[in-house]
Amino acid sequence: MSGHATSLRLKLPAICFLLQLLTIILFAVYVRYDEETSANLWHQKLRHHNGSNLDNDFYFRYPSFQDVHTMIFIGFGFLMTFLKRYGFSSVAFNFLIAAFAIQWSTLIQGFLHSFHNGKIHVGIESMINADFCSGAILISFGAVLGKTSPVQLLLMTLLEVTLFGINEYILLSLIGAKDAGGSMTIHTFGAYFGLTVSRLLYRPHLNKSRQREGSVYHSDLFAMIGTIYLWLFWPSFNSAVTAHGDDQHRTVLNTYFSLAASTLATFAISSLINGEGKLDMVHIQNAALAGGVVVGTSAEMMLTPFGAMIAGFLAGTISTLGFKFITPILDSKLKIQDTCGVHNLHGLPGVLGALLGALVAGLATQDVYGDGMEDVFPFIADGSRTARYQAIYQLLALLITLAFAFIGGSAVGESRFPMSFLASPPDTQCFEDQIYWEGLSSFSFNISKGRGKAQPAQ
Amino acid sequence: MSGHATSLRLKLPAICFLLQLLTIILFAVYVRYDEETSANLWHQKLRHHNGSNLDNDFYFRYPSFQDVHTMIFIGFGFLMTFLKRYGFSSVAFNFLIAAFAIQWSTLIQGFLHSFHNGKIHVGIESMINADFCSGAILISFGAVLGKTSPVQLLLMTLLEVTLFGINEYILLSLIGAKDAGGSMTIHTFGAYFGLTVSRLLYRPHLNKSRQREGSVYHSDLFAMIGTIYLWLFWPSFNSAVTAHGDDQHRTVLNTYFSLAASTLATFAISSLINGEGKLDMVHIQNAALAGGVVVGTSAEMMLTPFGAMIAGFLAGTISTLGFKFITPILDSKLKIQDTCGVHNLHGLPGVLGALLGALVAGLATQDVYGDGMEDVFPFIADGSRTARYQAIYQLLALLITLAFAFIGGSAVGESRFPMSFLASPPDTQCFEDQIYWEGLSSFSFNISKGRGKAQPAQ
Amino acid sequence: MSGHATSLRLKLPAICFLLQLLTIILFAVYVRYDEETSANLWHQKLRHHNGSNLDNDFYFRYPSFQDVHTMIFIGFGFLMTFLKRYGFSSVAFNFLIAAFAIQWSTLIQGFLHSFHNGKIHVGIESMINADFCSGAILISFGAVLGKTSPVQLLLMTLLEVTLFGINEYILLSLIGAKDAGGSMTIHTFGAYFGLTVSRLLYRPHLNKSRQREGSVYHSDLFAMIGTIYLWLFWPSFNSAVTAHGDDQHRTVLNTYFSLAASTLATFAISSLINGEGKLDMVHIQNAALAGGVVVGTSAEMMLTPFGAMIAGFLAGTISTLGFKFITPILDSKLKIQDTCGVHNLHGLPGVLGALLGALVAGLATQDVYGDGMEDVFPFIADGSRTARYQAIYQLLALLITLAFAFIGGSAVGESRFPMSFLASPPDTQCFEDQIYWEGLSSFSFNISKGRGKAQPAQ
Repeated sequence: MSGHATSLRLKLPAICFLLQLLTIILFAVYVRYDEETSANLWHQKLRHHNGSNLDNDFYFRYPSFQDVHTMIFIGFGFLMTFLKRYGFSSVAFNFLIAAFAIQWSTLIQGFLHSFHNGKIHVGIESMINADFCSGAILISFGAVLGKTSPVQLLLMTLLEVTLFGINEYILLSLIGAKDAGGSMTIHTFGAYFGLTVSRLLYRPHLNKSRQREGSVYHSDLFAMIGTIYLWLFWPSFNSAVTAHGDDQHRTVLNTYFSLAASTLATFAISSLINGEGKLDMVHIQNAALAGGVVVGTSAEMMLTPFGAMIAGFLAGTISTLGFKFITPILDSKLKIQDTCGVHNLHGLPGVLGALLGALVAGLATQDVYGDGMEDVFPFIADGSRTARYQAIYQLLALLITLAFAFIGGSAVGESRFPMSFLASPPDTQCFEDQIYWEGLSSFSFNISKGRGKAQPAQ
Repeated sequence: MSGHATSLRLKLPAICFLLQLLTIILFAVYVRYDEETSANLWHQKLRHHNGSNLDNDFYFRYPSFQDVHTMIFIGFGFLMTFLKRYGFSSVAFNFLIAAFAIQWSTLIQGFLHSFHNGKIHVGIESMINADFCSGAILISFGAVLGKTSPVQLLLMTLLEVTLFGINEYILLSLIGAKDAGGSMTIHTFGAYFGLTVSRLLYRPHLNKSRQREGSVYHSDLFAMIGTIYLWLFWPSFNSAVTAHGDDQHRTVLNTYFSLAASTLATFAISSLINGEGKLDMVHIQNAALAGGVVVGTSAEMMLTPFGAMIAGFLAGTISTLGFKFITPILDSKLKIQDTCGVHNLHGLPGVLGALLGALVAGLATQDVYGDGMEDVFPFIADGSRTARYQAIYQLLALLITLAFAFIGGSAVGESRFPMSFLASPPDTQCFEDQIYWEGLSSFSFNISKGRGKAQPAQ
Repeated sequence: MSGHATSLRLKLPAICFLLQLLTIILFAVYVRYDEETSANLWHQKLRHHNGSNLDNDFYFRYPSFQDVHTMIFIGFGFLMTFLKRYGFSSVAFNFLIAAFAIQWSTLIQGFLHSFHNGKIHVGIESMINADFCSGAILISFGAVLGKTSPVQLLLMTLLEVTLFGINEYILLSLIGAKDAGGSMTIHTFGAYFGLTVSRLLYRPHLNKSRQREGSVYHSDLFAMIGTIYLWLFWPSFNSAVTAHGDDQHRTVLNTYFSLAASTLATFAISSLINGEGKLDMVHIQNAALAGGVVVGTSAEMMLTPFGAMIAGFLAGTISTLGFKFITPILDSKLKIQDTCGVHNLHGLPGVLGALLGALVAGLATQDVYGDGMEDVFPFIADGSRTARYQAIYQLLALLITLAFAFIGGSAVGESRFPMSFLASPPDTQCFEDQIYWEGLSSFSFNISKGRGKAQPAQ
């Protein structure tokens, strides 16, 4: 069945070994325990500050980390199992590239953010940030899902993680933009990076695999596992690295309300735009999550609960409309084949979230933030910036992110991953597990509760 | 397939928009950050008490909240996917009504519990309580599952959340009853409210849809995801809002032992009452959870570990027997069609839990509780009540709850939700996703591993 | 279909009642709240130490406990649903025996570890340790999966929990070995105990059920739910009972890196050893987890991040090779039928982890650990042992564990569980839910996306 060209034989083992070996060597040379994970350093710190083991930041970040971790591996992984014949690859390649991304981004982010005396120091915060970075990669993965081999995906990850780190460094460290939940650094970057790759890897004959580009009854239920977990833990995602205290607490609250509102909006619009008033599972699986994306930048700010709800409601609305009206145009007119519709869930809501962040930042007043200003807007607090200026920097951050996404995506796409070499699937074998997985018989679907056009060939 | 009468067209969008708009307006007018989520207020508090950001209640409630959140959206949502043809609606309508319920109950509970100077103050505790309220709604949902449209469900939610808040206010604030895990406020109320609605919406011709009212092999496995998560996190559910310290710790411990015992009881009885000694998946999916319900009131008290086990063992036994002997009678004699058997999982164990709570409260002594009495039974601690009186108030609380459930359920049921207007499914189309979901072909089940009477028409 | 011999009638109810009754009686006599869960004792403690409710250990152990809890019931439970016809039994018997194991091990571990003034004192730590013990039982369950009745499994649990407790007591309390994540006490013990039982219950005619000993497309996706959750929460598993502060933090970090590396190794080797370069879902579901097992002893030590990665990489490699080359030999030559391949996931990596622990312990220096030495190696800290001696004790611990596993497994296996009496399935009905579950029609598999030899008979 799977021709030599698409075979992973030697190619996948070779790149996995190479990347893992390289990573281990760089870790051996550069990565060390930080003062909260090193037995020696932590106890020195305890002695000096006469502190307690219970003050270790582990207790105040780890629960959030595990929620984020679940979103990355269960949330993204199962959300993509909606495809009737690509469930193994969706959850397993998600697993593979995220497992590499967290290692590689620990290095890249470490060199840029926590490189002291020639060493990278790691602990719970580096773990959270590494998971965040892998989130961006998985968003891009969603755009090219079913059309790229794991070999191609690992190479894409290698480059994308690197660019993610640089862009994040510019935004957060150089220009002092705020983006705790990553509307820009994660969602906008990941979506437009992936869409650019998808554009450059455009397959004019993808219709040869269209009968597989749909779901079956139970594959949609597996996907809902991913959806619900992403929805549940998004408050943890947006708050995982904000300042302790009111910041984390408020970020969670805002995200919670935004998600609730985007859910009602999604059900409303999904039914409204359907001829018979029926709901579309694709909308529920994706657009209901837009409320988490849209407050990624502003949730830590004094957005107000009803502000969060309005944002979520708009995001759910726009995202659902995007699936109905924009995705087809991207495909037919712009030659962008967006398998998971990441443009609707991460692209548009991400940009909207960046703009919202700029707006809310521009409205910041000492009166509203009080002494809390320092945690949210340090430059406004120390007088080095006005709220207006902070807003301008937020907008600048969005532009920089878009530029990095397009340039990075182009670099990957242009390279075209010489197909035969990188085991890319042929147009006739996209969205097909069989070419990569042992023991799967050829395409025949008794279990299909066919979804419209997605009827399986029987 | 789906006649105009059952079409959600315009009806679902209209009610979603209306409810969300109303909610946003009320939030704008009344809802504000509390002193743990407001940048300004929190930092004032820190200054006055010379405290630390790590004292924010977020760190001591949020992990429990996320467990409860998972129970509401994954636990309830997937538990109801056991129906072979109603998996989409089960998990998605659960998602929709819970997303509205948490918003609406934030307002209702806010007006009743945390309305200060004309404002509702929100934070992690209001989030947990809102999720609790949605739990009651989802229990009622279980009783009418497959026989009501999302439009009807949203209207039911609107009223039920309101009555839940009032009943809870009377129990906890006016008569000073204890019910941390909601044996009364959540389980008894939700179950009998839903059963009353189901009684009034009785469908004499439901047998026209019986062939769909069963499970298939994999739908039962999806349901087990819900079951296990409910079982795992029930200790967090019962302890989420108890006093900090020994109270939360003890509540978790008691619930953990009660659930373990109810699980063994369920397997034992399920096999015992079957002609061939076989196990029934319906019992495992539901009755094993009765141990969490039955200690909902008493888990925070000095129940003792073996007391918790006895309670759990009895609850699992009664619940399993209920599925075998009571549910058929409710259907045939009392004309109550209880789709998920909520009477067995939430009704009976809830009432039993209320009685157990009264008993354990009546046995409270200063000797056993010491200074901890104040957290568990403040009125006994301050001498304004004897243990006996507390027990009487607990019993009174049960009666009030049952009254609210019947009155509220009747109000909803009597209105009959003018059928054609609210898109109620016809008797021939109950338990059927196709009428609400895009792209599903008509009923034909290759994947069925038929369950007894639930054999699909092939 | 199910002959009287295999019927659970009366047998399962009888043993469940008996074991639960016995447990309740022993709890009534011996089990009491500890000073963190008792209202009276905790408030006395607060008064004496002038402490705060927020210091209760609940807040510093419970999130880890819930992660472990999820691994036991969702992780192990769903990992075993890969079998096409044994999904109900896998997740439900896992549920049953774990629910009993946590109660029984609370008693056994309590008598051995926390028996003061004739009473066992329970709280969050006893809950975590009880869950740990059930993990070992479930590993053994994996070796005999599909070939034993729940009656046999409960009897096995009764004995195995007891021996687990004694072995753990000898290792941790008597000879002072370190094994926070249980490479020895949990994985090595559970695996070789189960394999010994499997050897003694060898079925020469198991091929009569081979057509059922495989997966179908969606059963493999259910199994991936288990895999991912085990992978996600393994850092919590290894760190759940280590000392607070840097120890827990470091253990999490090491496990996280080890797992990431074992994942890449698994994908690499799985593809490398396949004729066409295809991936095998069995490897991904299991070997990717070996990274968690292999650092079970050493993760709390100063393993270094790159050391953790090397360990994980080797474990993933050896585990995958084990599935390909060792499992067939165990079956054909050694007559060990290892249904889930626990030898590859828990046996080999467990032994490897024990050796690694001895190595890292032997390299411990005051310079590296500083004042942290006391928490990790108390005997080295107080000068009563050199690092070399600690290493020798670690090796001794491995030998003792292997001895207990073989002796215990033999005791269970030799007894042979008089088959007809204990409802053991016949060779023709192994891996078959129908004999234990109500309402399942006979074996016919439309949904099969057959896996190699595992093609269903149609």
